[in-house]
Amino acid sequence: MTLSLRSQSRCFNGSMNYYTHDSSACNAPMNFALYLPPQAQTQSVPVLYYLSGLTCSEENFSIKAGAQRFAAELGIMLVIPDTSPRRTGIVGEDDSIDLGSGAGFYVDATQDPWKAHYQMYTYITRELPQLIWTHFPGRADKQGIFGHSMGGHGALVCGLTNPDKYLSLSAFAPIAAPIGTELGDKAFSAYLGENRSAWKAYDATELVRRYQFRDTILIDQGTADEYYEKQLLLPEKFVSACKESGQSVNFRLHRGYDHGYFMISTFIEDHLRHHARILCQ
Amino acid sequence: MTLSLRSQSRCFNGSMNYYTHDSSACNAPMNFALYLPPQAQTQSVPVLYYLSGLTCSEENFSIKAGAQRFAAELGIMLVIPDTSPRRTGIVGEDDSIDLGSGAGFYVDATQDPWKAHYQMYTYITRELPQLIWTHFPGRADKQGIFGHSMGGHGALVCGLTNPDKYLSLSAFAPIAAPIGTELGDKAFSAYLGENRSAWKAYDATELVRRYQFRDTILIDQGTADEYYEKQLLLPEKFVSACKESGQSVNFRLHRGYDHGYFMISTFIEDHLRHHARILCQ
Repeated sequence: MTLSLRSQSRCFNGSMNYYTHDSSACNAPMNFALYLPPQAQTQSVPVLYYLSGLTCSEENFSIKAGAQRFAAELGIMLVIPDTSPRRTGIVGEDDSIDLGSGAGFYVDATQDPWKAHYQMYTYITRELPQLIWTHFPGRADKQGIFGHSMGGHGALVCGLTNPDKYLSLSAFAPIAAPIGTELGDKAFSAYLGENRSAWKAYDATELVRRYQFRDTILIDQGTADEYYEKQLLLPEKFVSACKESGQSVNFRLHRGYDHGYFMISTFIEDHLRHHARILCQ
Repeated sequence: MTLSLRSQSRCFNGSMNYYTHDSSACNAPMNFALYLPPQAQTQSVPVLYYLSGLTCSEENFSIKAGAQRFAAELGIMLVIPDTSPRRTGIVGEDDSIDLGSGAGFYVDATQDPWKAHYQMYTYITRELPQLIWTHFPGRADKQGIFGHSMGGHGALVCGLTNPDKYLSLSAFAPIAAPIGTELGDKAFSAYLGENRSAWKAYDATELVRRYQFRDTILIDQGTADEYYEKQLLLPEKFVSACKESGQSVNFRLHRGYDHGYFMISTFIEDHLRHHARILCQ
């Protein structure tokens, strides 16, 4: 697993780096961004994965969220993967904003033509952590995960199904109950086929009935979010399922905030401190 | 002067807005971004203008710098103009990254074809403040200005030549002594003609010998900045001129930081607090 460093910038006394590597899970080159806090120069530090939303690359969060300020203060490494393989040669991969490039949905595809490259669940939960521990001073025993929108869905799915890997979990405006929504049904039928029982492995509201996460899940949602208004996110459905199954969740509804990064930047400090409370003990 | 609101997002309990209006100075539509802190809902607040660098629009700083966090805390309105008129019809306006679109250099052009639209000095120092006071709760008696690179040059020039308008002044990696550099000579000869004596009205190192700014000027510069390494910025030349003329300047050289927004985001808090110390008394 060789890593190619594309760029590096000093940031809050740490380093903001962009890498490309050949992914065996996705059988394609994959990009990710990594923030090394100043503490990583002398010790191993907790690792926090951020999964981005539709159309995003590894750049959006690293440029827009302002997370490095708090990662530097708290001594947390940030790992920000791209949202899909790109330029795989799959016909139609760039035709749609909610399928293919930029829209991997963090699932392991079982259907042609996607299955040859779209193995994002395995990439995020297995290959990428292994690569981080091999190349950087990240603590394998102190990992957390969070994300936004499609990436909030990914974080909830990865976190709930891997309670031994991830100690802390949060999301901004997650797609929290994809089955039955336009976005979820389109992606799952393309990647997973028409057998809807297979979809449940990637629906946070279904999963929280079967898995227990070890700590409170923090979720922030804006009321002026067009995806929320269109009933594509459905966090209340997830929160109800949490209550029924006894999962602790801190769901915060913020008046007037939309789906974009100005919302994320407003609440990023709270999320970093949520993860630090658990990871930096 | 009618304003068209292009978009609006809630951010740190305030509002991040993007506008277009017809500029009489530039005889063209102009774009700007504006951050209204929560305090502006009930009172008039100080106004801080940020001038961006080459190729930037009003979006770069508002998305990348993380300034809203501190503007909200301190109760400061941020005004972020575009760096030039655009789509004016001037032949060749988009041909170069250091002349024309995105490269107005904050001068009033006297030469054809630019003079018909490129009146950025008048736009920034007269028309835009007037528009702000007319439409928003900004205090005309509490204004500051700062900027980055070409916009750092613009801030120094606007600040030094208008000591009654701007009370506070700072810059990130400014083009601090443009005359005699490749960037400065190209822009000034195109916009101002070959009479080099006219250029001195827009060279901060020349101006600081003639004007005194009322407070300390804060300047941050990274040592790994390619523009600095290529001798295009020359802040030390400006600092020497400040010392000779008795101008107070706080010049900070930061090891390993480059010319990009990760540097700006690292030090933005210091700049906002510098301006707040003066503007929010």
